Amino acid sequence: MKKKIVIVGGVAGGATAAARLRRLNEEDEIVLLEKGEYISFANCGLPYYIGEVITNREALLVQTVEGMSKKFNLDIRNLSEVVEINRERKTVSIKKVETGEIYEESYDTLILSPGARPIVPPLNGLSDAENVFTLRNVPDTDKIKAWVDEKKPKEAVIIGGGFIGLEMAENLHHRGVNVSVIELGNQVMAPIDYEMAAIVHWELDNEGVELYLNDGVKAFKDGGRTIVLQSGKELTSDLTILSIGVRPENELAEKAGLTLGERGGIVVNQTLQTDDPNIYAIGDAIEVRDYVQGTPAMIPLAWPANRQGRLAADHINGRNAVYKGSLGTSVAKVFGLTVAATGNNEKLLKRSGVDYEAVHIHPNSNAAYYPGGSQLSMKLLFQPDTGEIFGAQAVGYKGVEKRIDVIATAIKGKLNVWDLADLELAYAPPYSSAKDPVNMAGYVGGNVVEGDLSLVHHHEIDEIVKKGGVLIDVREPEEREFGFITGSINIPLGELRDRLSELPEQQHIYVNCQVGLRGYLATKILTNNGFKASNLSGGYKTYLLGK
Amino acid sequence: MKKKIVIVGGVAGGATAAARLRRLNEEDEIVLLEKGEYISFANCGLPYYIGEVITNREALLVQTVEGMSKKFNLDIRNLSEVVEINRERKTVSIKKVETGEIYEESYDTLILSPGARPIVPPLNGLSDAENVFTLRNVPDTDKIKAWVDEKKPKEAVIIGGGFIGLEMAENLHHRGVNVSVIELGNQVMAPIDYEMAAIVHWELDNEGVELYLNDGVKAFKDGGRTIVLQSGKELTSDLTILSIGVRPENELAEKAGLTLGERGGIVVNQTLQTDDPNIYAIGDAIEVRDYVQGTPAMIPLAWPANRQGRLAADHINGRNAVYKGSLGTSVAKVFGLTVAATGNNEKLLKRSGVDYEAVHIHPNSNAAYYPGGSQLSMKLLFQPDTGEIFGAQAVGYKGVEKRIDVIATAIKGKLNVWDLADLELAYAPPYSSAKDPVNMAGYVGGNVVEGDLSLVHHHEIDEIVKKGGVLIDVREPEEREFGFITGSINIPLGELRDRLSELPEQQHIYVNCQVGLRGYLATKILTNNGFKASNLSGGYKTYLLGK
Repeated sequence: MKKKIVIVGGVAGGATAAARLRRLNEEDEIVLLEKGEYISFANCGLPYYIGEVITNREALLVQTVEGMSKKFNLDIRNLSEVVEINRERKTVSIKKVETGEIYEESYDTLILSPGARPIVPPLNGLSDAENVFTLRNVPDTDKIKAWVDEKKPKEAVIIGGGFIGLEMAENLHHRGVNVSVIELGNQVMAPIDYEMAAIVHWELDNEGVELYLNDGVKAFKDGGRTIVLQSGKELTSDLTILSIGVRPENELAEKAGLTLGERGGIVVNQTLQTDDPNIYAIGDAIEVRDYVQGTPAMIPLAWPANRQGRLAADHINGRNAVYKGSLGTSVAKVFGLTVAATGNNEKLLKRSGVDYEAVHIHPNSNAAYYPGGSQLSMKLLFQPDTGEIFGAQAVGYKGVEKRIDVIATAIKGKLNVWDLADLELAYAPPYSSAKDPVNMAGYVGGNVVEGDLSLVHHHEIDEIVKKGGVLIDVREPEEREFGFITGSINIPLGELRDRLSELPEQQHIYVNCQVGLRGYLATKILTNNGFKASNLSGGYKTYLLGK
Repeated sequence: MKKKIVIVGGVAGGATAAARLRRLNEEDEIVLLEKGEYISFANCGLPYYIGEVITNREALLVQTVEGMSKKFNLDIRNLSEVVEINRERKTVSIKKVETGEIYEESYDTLILSPGARPIVPPLNGLSDAENVFTLRNVPDTDKIKAWVDEKKPKEAVIIGGGFIGLEMAENLHHRGVNVSVIELGNQVMAPIDYEMAAIVHWELDNEGVELYLNDGVKAFKDGGRTIVLQSGKELTSDLTILSIGVRPENELAEKAGLTLGERGGIVVNQTLQTDDPNIYAIGDAIEVRDYVQGTPAMIPLAWPANRQGRLAADHINGRNAVYKGSLGTSVAKVFGLTVAATGNNEKLLKRSGVDYEAVHIHPNSNAAYYPGGSQLSMKLLFQPDTGEIFGAQAVGYKGVEKRIDVIATAIKGKLNVWDLADLELAYAPPYSSAKDPVNMAGYVGGNVVEGDLSLVHHHEIDEIVKKGGVLIDVREPEEREFGFITGSINIPLGELRDRLSELPEQQHIYVNCQVGLRGYLATKILTNNGFKASNLSGGYKTYLLGK
């Protein structure tokens, strides 16, 4: 039987659903409604067009209304805003954006893919500030780019250090603008933990981006030219990007009486249906399950939106289609750095009261003797008894997102820390080491779970030393010239076996090295000689990052 | 109880085993015997030192005898060749290479890690050829590099187009030498299939490397300066590298009465023990299980050697340690190209009589609108009823080994083609697309298994068209100007719905496009309209590669 399917929202999830619906069924009537002018545009590319990294505006328009209509035999209506869902009549009320005219369209099945919109707080002076922008779509992009092209701003202020904020920071910097970033939290890039974000802070500093952490905007003055921070500081801005986060476009669903989650996401079941089985919802507007913990989560990213679009179309056509939740796998380029993460971070695990352990490693991206490699920092989070993987983070200049992709795959395959050690990954000197960083993380994790390795963490060691704990720094004396942990005693690894008698037998011994590897060898020597010993996870490097 | 463990072979697996043994036990006596001068050197880096990509020779020496002895408290003896295993006495006979003196050393447990040596066929004139080299270790490297430095060869001939052959081709080319590669088979790089290797053939051609396929060496003349091929061709060579493969160093094991496999590998059980439970064997010299099929295989690569070294040490110390077999995951840089593979290739599956299906895709390494990306070619092999993944290959300029690592992980996680589609991988425009190439391969594979998509292959289509089969090329007319499959009829995808009446209703319709995506959309239109249709896997691109 021929069905009529109406889709609200023509970007990412909505466009994907439309294409998939047509591939599955040549007869169905498929109506795609988009309130904006453009459908299926490259959201994630927008900052790069402003930065002139992408130079061709057309390239942002992945599908045009005309092209996609023809290719997939769709009824696509842009500039068409759905203002009401009439569930009893199974119709939607559509407002033609240009004329204001409202008409009704019937549906057998409705898919809501309205997305999320940038949060705009009610700040003093904001309404008079012409130079403050948010970035969501092509018209926003055009406005910001025109402002940069025409006004040639000298100073830009980014409010919010998330993905869009940092991508805009990089792209405005690329345009020759001095950039400041204001972040309310103590770190940028919420998906990663503080000591990992510290590497990003360094990178921003190196690139000359001013970073104001633990500070927010109190008010705008002088028509937006002056930004007053909560700390009292005042910044001059010729261009301000407001990127403090997004909020699900849930009004339509709410008005229709569909259930919303605590954070406003439209609640759906595993087959992406709302309370009303004839209404599906997908993309940034919905509440998903955290893949690892099974708890509700809001994860406004492109992959879930696309995947959900496909699955909704499958389910509408009677196929098995279960959305299993989101890992929130993400990656961002921040100048030369790549920052990637998957699954749960430590902040979330701590907040959730879940029992976890973390390991930090700083291996080379590829064989140290092959040129062009660089150190990368990884953090692996796992269940301390079973070795179940909760999540991972990586930051560095090369081979970063590869390791996160592997761990995201491992999580979906229900692999544990030992399995990570057993992954047979591609090795040649330009690409990796015979023990890949993922293998290394797995080995360290396995050692912890098996009790072969006791860890102490960067945020614990100062307190321990202060209270009289013994900390042995097993690096060479030359390395300590660049800094060491106050109170640590230097016994280089090569001398440790001969100097065991210097150590107090009754006391727990803490060990640190530069990145954690020699420290591990040292703790093995110590424990095999009857001492109780713990290694500082990630060594002095992680300690320094955590400061 | 204190044990005495003797290890034969101080590179890769042997060195790893020694280090792990010490970490697990501080008391054991660990003797590491190496017949060469160097232990634990960077095998995989040797070609790059000859090519002066790696400029520091010291960098190749990962561990020195002195350094490693001290760090791990080991008894390391280099220039010490084990010439006999005396199983009854539990001793080995060791020849001091420098003096010829032989002495016995007892063991409780023996680990054999002798490696594999380059195959040198008994060719006419070889013994008189001073300019013919094999490459296995540091002295070989020194000899080749000295020859290049001093003799300044103009013409080099590489015999054998495997990993070492092609890495040497690139590195000698980098030194300004004209390079020819002779390969007995119809393709280079045995781990991948012919149509994938074709991309490598193009790359070699682009870089000015002469490639002689389906040809071998018959004899050397003029002291090696002339190489006579089986085809009768004669090549001039100032420097010849013999890299046709390796053979396990199995003589010691054989003489000791340990079982060898059909291809000469030392047979071990899952805990890496030979027939004699006191003798373990690891690395290139052993026969492993193919991880996918469970059949015997020889996989002389660094990852398995290292992994086995660790596991043997674990098992010796009473720990659970099972080597689950080798996927043979591999990667090589061939000039700008990256060539990577994991699991079974089509040649092996065909030879084994296993039921399989293959899909080819040619997606972009990252978002097409973001600069610096490039097309990559992937092949996925799987069980056609269950979707079990057998293997994958990828060739391209960017993001290649990442996708293979993900699929290698998926295989270890027992994920199937649908799961590949469901992998939540890291996406931002510089790194991937919202549907990653791995997702794409999974979607196509899933479509095939579910019967949503019928494929025809590059090696089948000519015959089909010749016999009167209908082949529709759904590309635009402009694209056909660069070539098309003889006998194909052009109906651009956008016109297909309107021109269905032109198609014969009773005949199976074959479809091709450029890379397979539009062809898939076309087959969906056709089958949804009652036609029987198949898509050419990988489109015209794979067809051309398969020529």
